[in-house]
Amino acid sequence: MRLRHKPWADDYLKENDQVVVQEPFEWKGNWKSLFEHKDQPLHLEIGSGKGQFIAGMGKQDEEINFVGIERVKSVIVGAVKKVVDAQTTNTRLVNEDAEDLRELFGPNEVDHIYLNFSDPWPKNRHEKRRLTYHTFLEQYQDVLIPGGEVTLKTDNRGLFEYSLMSFSQFGMIIEEVSVDLHADEDPLNVPTEYEEKFSAKGQPIYRCRVRFKT
Amino acid sequence: MRLRHKPWADDYLKENDQVVVQEPFEWKGNWKSLFEHKDQPLHLEIGSGKGQFIAGMGKQDEEINFVGIERVKSVIVGAVKKVVDAQTTNTRLVNEDAEDLRELFGPNEVDHIYLNFSDPWPKNRHEKRRLTYHTFLEQYQDVLIPGGEVTLKTDNRGLFEYSLMSFSQFGMIIEEVSVDLHADEDPLNVPTEYEEKFSAKGQPIYRCRVRFKT
Repeated sequence: MRLRHKPWADDYLKENDQVVVQEPFEWKGNWKSLFEHKDQPLHLEIGSGKGQFIAGMGKQDEEINFVGIERVKSVIVGAVKKVVDAQTTNTRLVNEDAEDLRELFGPNEVDHIYLNFSDPWPKNRHEKRRLTYHTFLEQYQDVLIPGGEVTLKTDNRGLFEYSLMSFSQFGMIIEEVSVDLHADEDPLNVPTEYEEKFSAKGQPIYRCRVRFKT
Repeated sequence: MRLRHKPWADDYLKENDQVVVQEPFEWKGNWKSLFEHKDQPLHLEIGSGKGQFIAGMGKQDEEINFVGIERVKSVIVGAVKKVVDAQTTNTRLVNEDAEDLRELFGPNEVDHIYLNFSDPWPKNRHEKRRLTYHTFLEQYQDVLIPGGEVTLKTDNRGLFEYSLMSFSQFGMIIEEVSVDLHADEDPLNVPTEYEEKFSAKGQPIYRCRVRFKT
């Protein structure tokens, strides 16, 4: 399975250190200083996959700094290529398993978190693994600024419904919600690879933006 | 337009006073005493239309007392017929314009409120007329018990999205949410006339159950 493991990936990630953050845990508390424009808000995507979203967002909004985290090496190489091709300086990638975001980011260091098409973990006994389970919400609250926001996008009905309840029961406020995003035709929506594929099949895409209480 | 106005409706509503509450404002604070089983919880539907929901619920759950409000006389006669046919003693109807529920119900008098396929009032300038606008939520909170619940069901995407935000911004907690109710096949769901019609066309039905904080 040489192709799947992509043994050249290690080299590729090291060579592209203008995009791939090499020692990410060492930047805890100092992420802003990584970027050319250090005073810009920091937006974080958890699970960037092949990077269409984070690369597209970086290009669309140059007044924000973006960090995309993806644990699967053979997947993140695709994201690296897209960010390199975009020729932006506001987008960085991290190849880590973000089990506890508080190891990577200090308090109040992040302005916005994106969860795009996260694993739905549909079985009840796997509830704790869903990225909107309350233990993850606690992490997000700790690394986000007061009143920081989370945007969730998914095609998975169960995950969407669960997440709305979980956000609400955590005391978060729903700022925006769409149960058929592509019917709304939001011109600023940057679709992920998944999103394009499922939306093309007529599957509705769900999105909500929620914020922590100050 | 004799047919539309149904001039016989007045007589019909008076004749069926075992179902239609004749002087509803006089029962404020004493609704429970109207029913055979006075100790049962009181559930209220606002906008009962032709009554399929309220008549069906009354039959399905005899341990709850139900009141359905519908302001349109030519419509409520259909509901009266259904409740009469159901031969229940736990379901009453009110032919009033429920502009302020606090004129009809005292504090803590209601246990649950149902809003089924309410008018979506899609124009921004009509926001105040939507039954989930914050002024209505204040009414609901006043007549409901502490921690009382509201269940909203609609096929209208805009109203559903708006209502989730409005509930959330009012501080209510989402207890349950479905963005495709008929895919869930809830055996206890009692469909309204509207619901059957729109669901048959493949339109998803949205539902949420929310509660006020205690």
